[in-house]
Amino acid sequence: MVPSELNALKAHEEQTWTGLELLVCAVLQLILVFLAYRLDRSTAQQWFIPESACAIFFGLCFGVVLKFFTPVQDDAMGLNPQVLFFGLLPPIILEAGFNMKKRGFFSNFSTILLLAIVGTLVATFVTGGALIWLGHLGWITSLTPAEAYLYGSLISAVDPVATLSVFKKSDAPPMLFNLVFGESVLNDGVAIVVFTLFQESIRQGVHEINSHAASNVILQVIVILFGSILLAAVVCLLSAFLLKHADPALQLYPTYEISIILLSAYISYVVGDLAGLSGIVALFFSGVLMSHYHLTTISQESATALKHLLSTLAFLAENFIFLYLGVSVVAYSGAFKWDWAFIGWQLVILVVARAANTFPLCGLANVGRKEQIPLSYMVVIWFSGLRGAIAFALALNVWTIHSDHAGVIKSSTLFTVMSTTLVHTSATSWSHRAGCDARRCLGC
Amino acid sequence: MVPSELNALKAHEEQTWTGLELLVCAVLQLILVFLAYRLDRSTAQQWFIPESACAIFFGLCFGVVLKFFTPVQDDAMGLNPQVLFFGLLPPIILEAGFNMKKRGFFSNFSTILLLAIVGTLVATFVTGGALIWLGHLGWITSLTPAEAYLYGSLISAVDPVATLSVFKKSDAPPMLFNLVFGESVLNDGVAIVVFTLFQESIRQGVHEINSHAASNVILQVIVILFGSILLAAVVCLLSAFLLKHADPALQLYPTYEISIILLSAYISYVVGDLAGLSGIVALFFSGVLMSHYHLTTISQESATALKHLLSTLAFLAENFIFLYLGVSVVAYSGAFKWDWAFIGWQLVILVVARAANTFPLCGLANVGRKEQIPLSYMVVIWFSGLRGAIAFALALNVWTIHSDHAGVIKSSTLFTVMSTTLVHTSATSWSHRAGCDARRCLGC
Repeated sequence: MVPSELNALKAHEEQTWTGLELLVCAVLQLILVFLAYRLDRSTAQQWFIPESACAIFFGLCFGVVLKFFTPVQDDAMGLNPQVLFFGLLPPIILEAGFNMKKRGFFSNFSTILLLAIVGTLVATFVTGGALIWLGHLGWITSLTPAEAYLYGSLISAVDPVATLSVFKKSDAPPMLFNLVFGESVLNDGVAIVVFTLFQESIRQGVHEINSHAASNVILQVIVILFGSILLAAVVCLLSAFLLKHADPALQLYPTYEISIILLSAYISYVVGDLAGLSGIVALFFSGVLMSHYHLTTISQESATALKHLLSTLAFLAENFIFLYLGVSVVAYSGAFKWDWAFIGWQLVILVVARAANTFPLCGLANVGRKEQIPLSYMVVIWFSGLRGAIAFALALNVWTIHSDHAGVIKSSTLFTVMSTTLVHTSATSWSHRAGCDARRCLGC
Repeated sequence: MVPSELNALKAHEEQTWTGLELLVCAVLQLILVFLAYRLDRSTAQQWFIPESACAIFFGLCFGVVLKFFTPVQDDAMGLNPQVLFFGLLPPIILEAGFNMKKRGFFSNFSTILLLAIVGTLVATFVTGGALIWLGHLGWITSLTPAEAYLYGSLISAVDPVATLSVFKKSDAPPMLFNLVFGESVLNDGVAIVVFTLFQESIRQGVHEINSHAASNVILQVIVILFGSILLAAVVCLLSAFLLKHADPALQLYPTYEISIILLSAYISYVVGDLAGLSGIVALFFSGVLMSHYHLTTISQESATALKHLLSTLAFLAENFIFLYLGVSVVAYSGAFKWDWAFIGWQLVILVVARAANTFPLCGLANVGRKEQIPLSYMVVIWFSGLRGAIAFALALNVWTIHSDHAGVIKSSTLFTVMSTTLVHTSATSWSHRAGCDARRCLGC
């Protein structure tokens, strides 16, 4: 056969495989809908396997089938980071912003900022420092300082998707929900920013991180965070202007109203990313601001439709992410290097590092708060740091001159994501129940 | 730099370019929303440039910028057929089925089937035959018989997207709308089936088409069409069962209800494609059946939200397709071979071939119809055969052993799509107005 014929045949075959993959995904998604429904209907007291864990498990099985029984290439199997960042994350983050209870969020805003900014930085530097130290002792693979902090930052990205999917199911007390969820969204933005800064220095051949570089990172994080919020405010203002100054007949066209809101929010996300700010933070705040200002401007019908549109898209995107997390485990297995000592130690470090920021920072926040954060809540916050798709996507993007170090970082991230989602989830729902019980005992 | 470093840099750069492209798309889409709104508000008597034509024009400019001012590769610029078939078409086709007026559609069903099945086959064979004859005369590039019929089939794919976007804007009389629109959806399915059959024979090295092969094609088309409708019915029945036999509390979860409907419809589309049936026809009928049976089963809130969700997604997908049609012109310009005699003659043949099926078949249909199709309607039907994204996507997939023939087919399809969308549109709205005027004169 001539090469062009081979190409045409290959394209035809690829199309068939894409179709088959999409079919399996759609069927698995359908099963997950019913699973989610059953979980929602079950009482909070029952022990449950979260739907995210089921999705990962389905994905794992699917990945094994794809790898061993089909001719699909390994690198075409896994989750493409571009699809994740530009296609699947936006609806989830926007929906989170839209459905955020404004009052609770802003009344806890300073605590959330403290946990998200200072907390993430503390976690990054504690994790990185401990890994460097253990590396020097020769107990684990010895990463360069920049690599260690890079890993510290990506593994500090507490995942809003995973956290939300657990907390939505349980009727957590509002303050706890606002703290955990608000932190997980903003911390994500912060972690991505820190990750990008360290990745940039590694790319430029810088492997040592001195205190000057560290303080530079801290400064940039603050600038980027507030820059992103400002960006969201500007985009929100512009689209409010567009919606208000179109003649009132626009209300007769829900399609156009919804399109304007979705497109403006997406623009804030992409501009944030391109301008070196945090797209996730910008999109989240666009959601918060738009649900406050725009939902009263547009017609009632559009507002209801938009709410359901976002939650349906977010629900499907979320399941898709977990499904492909499972598939990716099999797909990218060639790029992994398993250092079990590293994996074990970093799990311990993670728990310690999260304790090292949660308890002191919550204590500090309590000094200025009218409504105190009880110790039981702090325990829940400590435990609810799930690592999810964002950490994994960042790990897939890791590049360093030592390819075995990159392999260790990838495998370790994957293990952490899987274990926090599977084990941690049960622990969270347990510790959350403990928190509720404590609350009930305390009569609050 | 080592290769892996280059790769990492390339991936990083690609991500930036994807972001920029998406940003430009989002901004252009936002402009198109306002354009669409203005057009909707303008009176039908005003002459207008349809929004689809504006989108193509924007896309052309965007393509030129991408090609000459950015490092984006040509083949990464254009519309990927897989994205079109699996991502952008489904919402458009499903929405079309959902919003189809059931009564008008089914009361004209036999006429629509006649136009779609027999009409498409007549158009395919007339076009193919004429091209073979002109090729023998040496007036145009001489295609092999199989190639000529292949071109005949793909250029007979009257595009529902383009046709709809014109007809929705004008208040066409219901019977005319049902005929034109119903034909355009089903004819599309038929054309894709015929195209696939001819492409398959070319791949197997068959270049002559005898009467046995031709009758085989006709038989397969009928089997595939009814098979697809049956598939839609089965999927609709299954999902109705799922929705009805979940406990009634499912109505409290619009997200799940909407997800179930969307996923089942998508499953019918992919299964149709994989089983060698027509995914488009299956999806369209899923939409028709689901809007009839499911919308009464699910909660009122879900039904309204689903309607707006589909129309918003379809609206955005439609604009995206036209935008990228423009970009693709620039992107794939290297694969084109321009034979202007071929282009000119095939345009004449198209108009004749469409007349050759519209008038006799409408006349035939009138024999059995209570409500006659007036001549003025036939003229509108004749003129409203817009060729759009589907024809172009099929052309991009064309493969033949004579690569210059493929180049001629591609350039000619592109020219036809552009000219029918730009010129034909105005002609349609003109001839449609003429039809309305005629109707008014006749007092019907």
